[in-house]
Amino acid sequence: MKRVVIIGGVAAGMSAAARLRRLDEEVSIVVLERDRYVSYANCGLPYHIGGAIPDREQLLVVTPEHLRATLNLDVRTEHEVIAIDREAQTVEVHDHQRGSRYIEAYDILVLAQGAAPLRPPVPGIDHPRVFTLRSMPDMDAIKAIVDGGAERAIVVGGSYIGVEVAEALRERQLDVHLIELQDQVMPLLDIEMATDLRYHMELHGVTLHLGTAASSCADVDGRIAVTLRTGETLVADFVVLAAGVRPITSLAQQIGLALGKTGGIKVDATMRTSDPHIYAAGDMVEVIDTVTGEPTLVALAGPANRQGRIVADQICGRDSTYTTTQGTAVVKIFAMTGGATGASEKTLRRLGRAYRKVYLHPAGHASYYPGTAPMHIKLLFAPEDGRVLGAQIVGYDGVDKRLDVFATAIRAGMTVFDLERLELAYAPPYGSAKDPVNMAGFLAANLLRGDVAFWYPDEYEQQSAETVFLDVRGPQEYAQWHIPGAVNIPLTELRSRVEELRPVDAKPMRIYCMVGFRSYLAYRILRQHGFDDVATLAGGGRTFTSFYRTTLATGAPGIPFVSHAEEDLAAQILLDQ
Amino acid sequence: MKRVVIIGGVAAGMSAAARLRRLDEEVSIVVLERDRYVSYANCGLPYHIGGAIPDREQLLVVTPEHLRATLNLDVRTEHEVIAIDREAQTVEVHDHQRGSRYIEAYDILVLAQGAAPLRPPVPGIDHPRVFTLRSMPDMDAIKAIVDGGAERAIVVGGSYIGVEVAEALRERQLDVHLIELQDQVMPLLDIEMATDLRYHMELHGVTLHLGTAASSCADVDGRIAVTLRTGETLVADFVVLAAGVRPITSLAQQIGLALGKTGGIKVDATMRTSDPHIYAAGDMVEVIDTVTGEPTLVALAGPANRQGRIVADQICGRDSTYTTTQGTAVVKIFAMTGGATGASEKTLRRLGRAYRKVYLHPAGHASYYPGTAPMHIKLLFAPEDGRVLGAQIVGYDGVDKRLDVFATAIRAGMTVFDLERLELAYAPPYGSAKDPVNMAGFLAANLLRGDVAFWYPDEYEQQSAETVFLDVRGPQEYAQWHIPGAVNIPLTELRSRVEELRPVDAKPMRIYCMVGFRSYLAYRILRQHGFDDVATLAGGGRTFTSFYRTTLATGAPGIPFVSHAEEDLAAQILLDQ
Repeated sequence: MKRVVIIGGVAAGMSAAARLRRLDEEVSIVVLERDRYVSYANCGLPYHIGGAIPDREQLLVVTPEHLRATLNLDVRTEHEVIAIDREAQTVEVHDHQRGSRYIEAYDILVLAQGAAPLRPPVPGIDHPRVFTLRSMPDMDAIKAIVDGGAERAIVVGGSYIGVEVAEALRERQLDVHLIELQDQVMPLLDIEMATDLRYHMELHGVTLHLGTAASSCADVDGRIAVTLRTGETLVADFVVLAAGVRPITSLAQQIGLALGKTGGIKVDATMRTSDPHIYAAGDMVEVIDTVTGEPTLVALAGPANRQGRIVADQICGRDSTYTTTQGTAVVKIFAMTGGATGASEKTLRRLGRAYRKVYLHPAGHASYYPGTAPMHIKLLFAPEDGRVLGAQIVGYDGVDKRLDVFATAIRAGMTVFDLERLELAYAPPYGSAKDPVNMAGFLAANLLRGDVAFWYPDEYEQQSAETVFLDVRGPQEYAQWHIPGAVNIPLTELRSRVEELRPVDAKPMRIYCMVGFRSYLAYRILRQHGFDDVATLAGGGRTFTSFYRTTLATGAPGIPFVSHAEEDLAAQILLDQ
Repeated sequence: MKRVVIIGGVAAGMSAAARLRRLDEEVSIVVLERDRYVSYANCGLPYHIGGAIPDREQLLVVTPEHLRATLNLDVRTEHEVIAIDREAQTVEVHDHQRGSRYIEAYDILVLAQGAAPLRPPVPGIDHPRVFTLRSMPDMDAIKAIVDGGAERAIVVGGSYIGVEVAEALRERQLDVHLIELQDQVMPLLDIEMATDLRYHMELHGVTLHLGTAASSCADVDGRIAVTLRTGETLVADFVVLAAGVRPITSLAQQIGLALGKTGGIKVDATMRTSDPHIYAAGDMVEVIDTVTGEPTLVALAGPANRQGRIVADQICGRDSTYTTTQGTAVVKIFAMTGGATGASEKTLRRLGRAYRKVYLHPAGHASYYPGTAPMHIKLLFAPEDGRVLGAQIVGYDGVDKRLDVFATAIRAGMTVFDLERLELAYAPPYGSAKDPVNMAGFLAANLLRGDVAFWYPDEYEQQSAETVFLDVRGPQEYAQWHIPGAVNIPLTELRSRVEELRPVDAKPMRIYCMVGFRSYLAYRILRQHGFDDVATLAGGGRTFTSFYRTTLATGAPGIPFVSHAEEDLAAQILLDQ
């Protein structure tokens, strides 16, 4: 009888175990889990702290007893593997329940230990009130301190877990401070795409400390003081560390398995490690990025589950293989949703890849039907053939849906011309006859076909003194906000007043409106009237201010924008819609 | 100056006009619209009647004045084209505002007249209280009679418009009767997929008269009496006819343009009719079905808009072409959502095409996070290569999202093996680590790889007397409902009790549970224990009862199912979740 030992009983490990049993009734399957729980809903942990999931038992998807009864799995919790002997094909296990050790033999070993929270090398970080949130006991500890009357918390890290924890603690009425090294929340997004999320978090009472980090922690009468690099000191009842994760590879390193350059375990397409008797799956393995082809680490539940299935297939002699990971992810932040799939602009830049981009602000569904608000979409695509490289969306309704359509398009290798032709489900409560994804395709295809030229917010400061900024909105909109020095000719008057612009028709003309539609029409008119150096602002004033609201703190000069208070009001109006 | 005349100013016509102007500042564009309004939100009409869109002006997306100012379009409302002279390249126009007629010359003519409601040849159907709902005046008339205190309405037709109108009138507290010729609501869905929608409509107070039709209408003191083929007579304040639409082709026929076998105007991939100076777009043209390759008529806003764009491109000498229409559509019915993309099973059967199918009932998002309920998914795919042929979904949350992912997959020519690998956006409020679309792919791929064999609800009555039905649910579930004569061995006891089944191991064994997961595990166990003729019920008891609840009325014998009242309760519990 073949003996399969799986180290780790959550996403990848349990997927492998369950599928393995479905494929093979005979194989012996032992799952060794260091913690007290297996197959729990680790993505749900923040929501139990916050109260959205009141019943803790809901998170315990299945128990070892249930797994034995339905799948004949030998699941051993609080059993930690402390050594692997590749020659003998055995693992040494520490049974924390009994305090004993034993040797377990395997024919096939599966590593599915996941990733562990990064602990920044900060003095005092081992203070007992510094928590992480990866497991049920982690959650229980944080919830206990909140239930005990904690009033103030510090969250370190502004990515998925960090913002989910910050939201949860705000739901519990705590005073929440979030510290993020980057100058934005959700660093996986490009900076201008994170702006709305940032202000939305502030609107909901999270105090953000961006572009800084904790430099030390210290005890203050049982509470904890965190000093930032800025010199500021925050005192709180506890700290949640959510500064990212790294693969748990100590065992793998001990036995000399090959690691990739990212530090994750190197596996082939069959999920096999450098030892033919050892597979690995989940957060601990290095994968290939779908878009860039580069090795990368992606700690996401979906890929982990699929990799676990493939391990089981392979153990049973099947030919299924893992391809690539595109990093599709989404987060709920109070009333907003933000997410991404494929490559970001910062990644493409870092790798020196060619790309084009468009921005748009379509409503989640027909704007005349209640309950919608504009979302902010950024689409990245290849200049040569229009292949979709990445998409980012933040907004209120329908964000996750469009992320999934873009994710599917990327997986299918679709181009922006394909996006134009997608036939998506339309009725007023769900979308628009021209869906936001179609609209993104139209804009991108127009660019590649040469029907439009864009200028981008980040090019503003590089514009020459010669540049004419043309604002084609109405005079009231112009009065509220405009780019300094911009000429105002409303679109509806442009055809009759085009001769006013003749004296400057040789100068670069940079057109804009609020979201980009009117300025696109103006672009078309001016081009056909013989203006050659014309471009329309991608995403309009909304994307422009998103960019400069975020970078202003770092010193971009001369950009006026409506005050933070006014923006909060605008966000509130969106919420009320 | 090139003169383009467009007949029809709503979806296709207005898309053509707007894009044409963006591409060409010089061309003369005249839009002739028979009605009083152009470019209004015709999909929103039921929601103004129902009150979801209180402000009528919201539906008037743009006015002729706005179109002139922004796009320099010459839009003439209440101008009806009454004749076309192909030789002279002119149209004769009746100006209903002035009561005069004139001739307008064209270089290019665009037909975008759409489709008109079918009026069944029923005596009395021309009663003044029989309305249709295609235009703003139609809507105004219905809303006026509702506002005037109407108490009872009859809706003829149970497809998209019919159910939207029925919902709207229930929102206004009317007693609503809906008559549908088919034995189901939403005839575009396969019958078992319409069951939940049917009971949901009844739960919300719509009285359904299915499998029948109006045979006559008569005046009763200013109200209207509709007699059904069953002999029953319903008296109501008014009737809304929503029995489908047909292309408006009278003008096209007068001038001898080629029609397709569906009765729609025949166009090539450039949307050109048999007259090289005449294009056509929108509901009036025959298109090719993406999946079946057959000519078809599809009256949907998305394809109409895209076709309009292509007409404009063609007029400007560009090479964009229209490909196919897959008929992606969605409808909101009270708290439920239902929709489809690609081919239905009834279509594939009618055409004699080979297909396979799976059913599943995943939750819209992680079941431990509040606000979700199981949806019912049916996936149809090609036996030889797994290409996705069609998908239907009904449920509560996340239905439109999965429809769009399936729609994108069909457009990309993806297989069920590709669905397994899709990397979709997961966080507990939005989905599951194994998304419903992935799950559909897993089931379908398991079938094609031979890892599972399904039996289907519609095969129940063809089972031989030899067949052993094995119910692998718990005894309580078995007591509540089971297939007559089924043996009950809970999955958790199956391994230890498998020898009890040895005496019948040569007989056909048909396993089932509630949604199909436990019986799939049981299938895997029994197959590996040497049982050869084993199959698991696709979709489990939920799909089974969906099928037989619907067909029972037509006489399927011996199928027990929980009473309607209990089902209403079950639906209510779903809603409360």
